[in-house]
Amino acid sequence: MKDTIRLDADDNVVTATRALEAGTSIEDVATTGLIPSGHKIATRAIGKGEQIRKYAQMIGVASTDIAAGDHVHTQNCDFVPTAQDYEFGTDMRPVTPATGDAFMGYRRENGSVGTRNYIAIVTSVNCSATAARRISDHFTPERLKDFPNVDGVCAFVHGTGCGMAGDGDGFEALQRVMWGYAKHPNHAGVLMVGLGCEMNQIDWLLDAYGLKQDESFQVMNIQGVAGLQKTIDLGIKKVEAMLPIANQATRSECPVSELKVALQCGGSDAWSGVTANPALGYACDLLAAQGGTGVLAETPEIYGAEHLLTRRAVSSEVGQKLIGMIEWWKDYTERNRGSMDNNPSPGNKKGGLTTILEKSLGAAAKGGTSPLTGVYKYAEPVTAKGFTFMDSPGYDPASVTGQIAGGCQVVVFTTGRGSAFGSKPSPTIKVSTNTEMYTRMTDDMDVNAGDMLTAGVSLEEKGREIYDLILRVASGEVSKSEAQGLGDFEFVPWQIGAVM
Amino acid sequence: MKDTIRLDADDNVVTATRALEAGTSIEDVATTGLIPSGHKIATRAIGKGEQIRKYAQMIGVASTDIAAGDHVHTQNCDFVPTAQDYEFGTDMRPVTPATGDAFMGYRRENGSVGTRNYIAIVTSVNCSATAARRISDHFTPERLKDFPNVDGVCAFVHGTGCGMAGDGDGFEALQRVMWGYAKHPNHAGVLMVGLGCEMNQIDWLLDAYGLKQDESFQVMNIQGVAGLQKTIDLGIKKVEAMLPIANQATRSECPVSELKVALQCGGSDAWSGVTANPALGYACDLLAAQGGTGVLAETPEIYGAEHLLTRRAVSSEVGQKLIGMIEWWKDYTERNRGSMDNNPSPGNKKGGLTTILEKSLGAAAKGGTSPLTGVYKYAEPVTAKGFTFMDSPGYDPASVTGQIAGGCQVVVFTTGRGSAFGSKPSPTIKVSTNTEMYTRMTDDMDVNAGDMLTAGVSLEEKGREIYDLILRVASGEVSKSEAQGLGDFEFVPWQIGAVM
Ligand SMILES: [Ca+2]
Ligand SMILES: [Ca+2]
Ligand SMILES: [Ca+2]
Ligand SMILES: [Ca+2]
Ligand SMILES: [Ca+2]
Repeated sequence: MKDTIRLDADDNVVTATRALEAGTSIEDVATTGLIPSGHKIATRAIGKGEQIRKYAQMIGVASTDIAAGDHVHTQNCDFVPTAQDYEFGTDMRPVTPATGDAFMGYRRENGSVGTRNYIAIVTSVNCSATAARRISDHFTPERLKDFPNVDGVCAFVHGTGCGMAGDGDGFEALQRVMWGYAKHPNHAGVLMVGLGCEMNQIDWLLDAYGLKQDESFQVMNIQGVAGLQKTIDLGIKKVEAMLPIANQATRSECPVSELKVALQCGGSDAWSGVTANPALGYACDLLAAQGGTGVLAETPEIYGAEHLLTRRAVSSEVGQKLIGMIEWWKDYTERNRGSMDNNPSPGNKKGGLTTILEKSLGAAAKGGTSPLTGVYKYAEPVTAKGFTFMDSPGYDPASVTGQIAGGCQVVVFTTGRGSAFGSKPSPTIKVSTNTEMYTRMTDDMDVNAGDMLTAGVSLEEKGREIYDLILRVASGEVSKSEAQGLGDFEFVPWQIGAVM
Repeated sequence: MKDTIRLDADDNVVTATRALEAGTSIEDVATTGLIPSGHKIATRAIGKGEQIRKYAQMIGVASTDIAAGDHVHTQNCDFVPTAQDYEFGTDMRPVTPATGDAFMGYRRENGSVGTRNYIAIVTSVNCSATAARRISDHFTPERLKDFPNVDGVCAFVHGTGCGMAGDGDGFEALQRVMWGYAKHPNHAGVLMVGLGCEMNQIDWLLDAYGLKQDESFQVMNIQGVAGLQKTIDLGIKKVEAMLPIANQATRSECPVSELKVALQCGGSDAWSGVTANPALGYACDLLAAQGGTGVLAETPEIYGAEHLLTRRAVSSEVGQKLIGMIEWWKDYTERNRGSMDNNPSPGNKKGGLTTILEKSLGAAAKGGTSPLTGVYKYAEPVTAKGFTFMDSPGYDPASVTGQIAGGCQVVVFTTGRGSAFGSKPSPTIKVSTNTEMYTRMTDDMDVNAGDMLTAGVSLEEKGREIYDLILRVASGEVSKSEAQGLGDFEFVPWQIGAVM
């Protein structure tokens, strides 16, 4: 393993692959101080105001004169947003179509395909959280033993649903989440539970989306049923009636074009953009070639790199949608007295990421190189095939909740610092960006992309490994986070407006 | 029971105590249409633009000409905010001090007094939610049987903690919540669990508040411990070490001046402001007379009635704090494209509450008539004795989370539509505003204030009943929601800023 990585010949910084003492020889220079692993070193003098370049792109501007060999980080590198001349479709790399790859999925009556077979208890408001949990807790493995094709009964509870405006972005996002979970192909049956007087009315949802109750889709309110215990008892009965029907589902061979995969990262480090994210991007390209779908999200995390995505947009309409979201986000963060530059998190910074732009270039790498075929609102059903984008915050549970609501049946999550994330009803595959963390958190990590640094594994090999695992997990292989039962407490609808 | 209630001789509306057919004789007039129970009837003609008066206060303005006998509701009554000339201390009704009332509490080393004896797992971020739940789930009644003085091990998990600004209102509120739960007198031991790379760093909290780890206060991060399962295993060991110490706590007689009681309402109806809220206000006055503390909250729900509270403020400084909060809220809701007039909820409206002002007058009645001795930020430690106010949203779980973080050891929650709310570590007493709902949801309701209408029970009797129950519950009597085990999923820190 070399001491540093150079990502492009024109870059004026390189990245340390391990902690380097002061005076270590790097290319033509010597380090002027201790460089933590994953952090950047200037390979030539950079004057105040000059661009700092990595990935052959500007990641920031020198806030003071930087000497060759200096540690480059927040103390001498600032993020400066620049005016963008957006281009649409100027960097199209058409996918070479491929066919024949398949997975074993649950084909539903409406034609959609599930990768799991759950019964879901979906709540409209925090006030029905305990009721929903009690109903799902009733269905122990012992009580489910006669229903071997049912993966479980899970409760989706959250902290919002009332004390909010009854229209606007936040309300609509929450209703889309509820609808997305209600009709998710990984759900064989759905029971919605509300309190009755909440702002997020279940009845409004049924009206707005034309949902009708049937044997596998039921709704109820605590106030209507007359209390917590009666609601729990009735809910258990309703789920019991769904179990035999759900148990009739079986897996059959389905083309990869039926797969929607959530592309996600969390607890990123300096290796995210070098190992795991490009490898996931390669897997996304393989998926797109088969007519499958990859769903990139986390708008604040691609902020500053959106001009690279619009060049891949299949139409200016698709590209403009993305730009519109970036504008919305600038306004949203300003209105809330934040800033799009408020990221990276303390953990990111510790890991060596200096600016949101540096992080964004690395985050966007999860999306591979295929054309951008569709851009979606948070939790909106994803209908385009190929590489797509969904608006969401970067915050992992909120972002994945939107991706799953949009129809994703598998989640792939890259992490450098080490996340213990998992999700239901769609399982999460976790990819470590570095070998050290993979070794330390081996119970939690499915794939080590750190071996791209430590063992010379190629991007193509690692991307293929992730792609193959996606197909196996889609077919029922249990991921690490799934084996640990994660996903019961990670349902977090994005809360946008004021809590009142 | 009379067909209607008149709250003041000068009011131009009365409230129907049951559904009334068109043509029913009301005072001097006949109803012009069906009047649902709890809804208002004009007792004289009210011209467009004239004030609608209830509680001897303006609750709105006629948006069209209203005939005597007409149903008065959203179709003909608008909320119009008016400029307020605030007065401070002009309506002081000094409390006649009383002493001698006591309860059996857990006196802690630092002098604070608990009403319960829990061990708490407090999370910094959603990413440690499953770890915290698994630790608390390990401590089944069977595993706790040797520790009879310990009420349980509870996990406080939530949907926020990262993807947020690392300063400002939202961040500070979350850190106050964590601090408040860490030092709550109902906790004999506290284990804080984080992921490691989140914005809401546990280390920052320890630094900011000078918290030191000891045998009963421990912190850990999943990334530091190296994975989910190792974190769970270590957490179980840490709690096991706390149990024998926690079990040594015993109850002793403590004066009521040690009690802080959260005053809360949710799922209000037209009776809230007539029965349960004034009765709770009377109980609050009894508490204040003994040197105890009542904590009113829910700033949006007293909006429009704040001028009545400032007249009771012990100083203009205390009153100005409240006005400052109202101004903050106007800005907060405007920035988020909402409005302070966005309340009441659909359930409130169905129950007959037309405007936020009408609801506010009824909500403020929970605070009784004693002087306002202190005004606090959300989740800030409440130190004044007597009647106090804490800034919070109206949304029940977020508001109660702030009140408990501020030190409340008991919660009293009035509800008209019927709520199944419960809380930990401080138990919730629920008071029904009407006999019909009390009878229907008897498993969930501790007190029926509806009998003030249906059985002529006086305000003083009902207030005394609530006060006595507060003391018994503080001493260990189990409330209805507590018996049902509620409170594990109702911890909802107020999320203020943008989710990024
Ligand atoms: Ca991320
Ligand atoms: Ca993130
Ligand atoms: Ca993320
Ligand atoms: Ca309320
Ligand atoms: Ca409330």
